[in-house]
Amino acid sequence: MENARTIDFYWEVGSTNSYFALHLLRPIAERHGAAIRYIPINLGHVFRHHNYVLMEEPAAKIANRIRDLERWAEHYDLPFRLPTMFPIKTSRAQRGAIAMRNWGREEAFIDAIFAAYWERDDASIQHYAGLRGIAEALGVDPDDFEAAAESDESRAALIEATDGALARGVFGAPTMVIGDEIFWGKDRMDFVERALTWS
Amino acid sequence: MENARTIDFYWEVGSTNSYFALHLLRPIAERHGAAIRYIPINLGHVFRHHNYVLMEEPAAKIANRIRDLERWAEHYDLPFRLPTMFPIKTSRAQRGAIAMRNWGREEAFIDAIFAAYWERDDASIQHYAGLRGIAEALGVDPDDFEAAAESDESRAALIEATDGALARGVFGAPTMVIGDEIFWGKDRMDFVERALTWS
Repeated sequence: MENARTIDFYWEVGSTNSYFALHLLRPIAERHGAAIRYIPINLGHVFRHHNYVLMEEPAAKIANRIRDLERWAEHYDLPFRLPTMFPIKTSRAQRGAIAMRNWGREEAFIDAIFAAYWERDDASIQHYAGLRGIAEALGVDPDDFEAAAESDESRAALIEATDGALARGVFGAPTMVIGDEIFWGKDRMDFVERALTWS
Repeated sequence: MENARTIDFYWEVGSTNSYFALHLLRPIAERHGAAIRYIPINLGHVFRHHNYVLMEEPAAKIANRIRDLERWAEHYDLPFRLPTMFPIKTSRAQRGAIAMRNWGREEAFIDAIFAAYWERDDASIQHYAGLRGIAEALGVDPDDFEAAAESDESRAALIEATDGALARGVFGAPTMVIGDEIFWGKDRMDFVERALTWS
C-alpha cells in the first residue's frame, strides 16, 4: 500500500509558492514511498477561468508577505530570493518541462528552471535563449528541445493538463492531489503527510 | 530571558482563523515561558482602513477552504464547526473581553465566546442576551458586565487597540507580534515558535 500512492503536483514556475512546495514535497514523498507526478499548468488560464483577479493588497500585507517568504527560506534553508522581474512569461518553460519527458529529464529540468528564476534571479527562462542552455546542460540537443517544446503535442499537453486541473477543482498553485483530496499551498504539507500516513 | 517574552495576540471572535490560533498559540507560549497579551481589535475597521474588500472567490476555492478547515479541526482535535450564521456583529463581544479585565476573567471570557460561536453554533454572542449569561457563568454580575462593556472606557480601549494594531502594521486576524516581528495567520505557528526559540 505504501508504494502504490501518487501525489499529483500541479505547478507553475512563475509561482513563488510552487518553488517552496517543490522542495518541501519531495522528502515527504520519500518518507512514504509515494511517487510525485509533475503536472505543469497554465496558471494564468486557471485564474482567468475562475475570474480571479489578483487584487491590490494593503502595503502592510505586502510587506508581511515579503518578510514571510524570507522566513520560509530561512526555516527550510533554501537559497530563495525575490526576483527583480515579476511576473514573467512562463508558457515556454511549462511546455519545455513536458518536452523534456521525451528524454527522461523532466524533473531535472523543473529543478533547473525554478533554481534559475527563484534562486539566481535569472528571468531568461521566459525565452528559449535561457531554456536551450538548460536543456543542453541536461544532455539534450537544444534544437531538438526547442522543436519539442514548440510542437503541437506539447501545446496540446499543456492545455489538456490545465483543463484536467480545472475539472478536478484546482484553482491555484501549488496544488497537491492525493486520491480525491486536494491540498492547496506550500503551507499544507502537514496535511499532505497526514493523508499519506493514513491512506 | 525565557520568561521575559510577550506575544501580542490580535484577535476577533468573528474570525475563523482566530479560533484556531487561540488554541494553537497557548501550548507554544507555555513551552517557551512566554506570556500572551490578548488584544481585541475591530477587524472590520482594519479592513476598511486598508480598503480591503473580501472578494468573490471561485466556488472551487471556497469548497477547498471548507475542507481545509475540517482538516485543521481533525489534525488538532478541536470541536470546530462552521457556524450557520456568518458573519455576525462582534463589537459587543470584543468590548466585553476588555470589560472582563476588571474582574480578571478576560481569558476565560475569550474562551467562552469562541467556544459558543465556533463550537456550538451559538450566534447569541452578538448581543448582550448571550454575553450576559457568559459573564454570569464566570462569576460576574451581568448588569455590571454590560455597563462596563458599554462604557466609554471600553469603547475607547477597543478603538485604541485597533488604531495601535494598524500603526504596528496589522492587517488581519489572527496576528501574533513578538518584538518587531509580525506573524499573520493560524498557519504560521512554526515561525512563532522559532522566534521564541531564537530570541
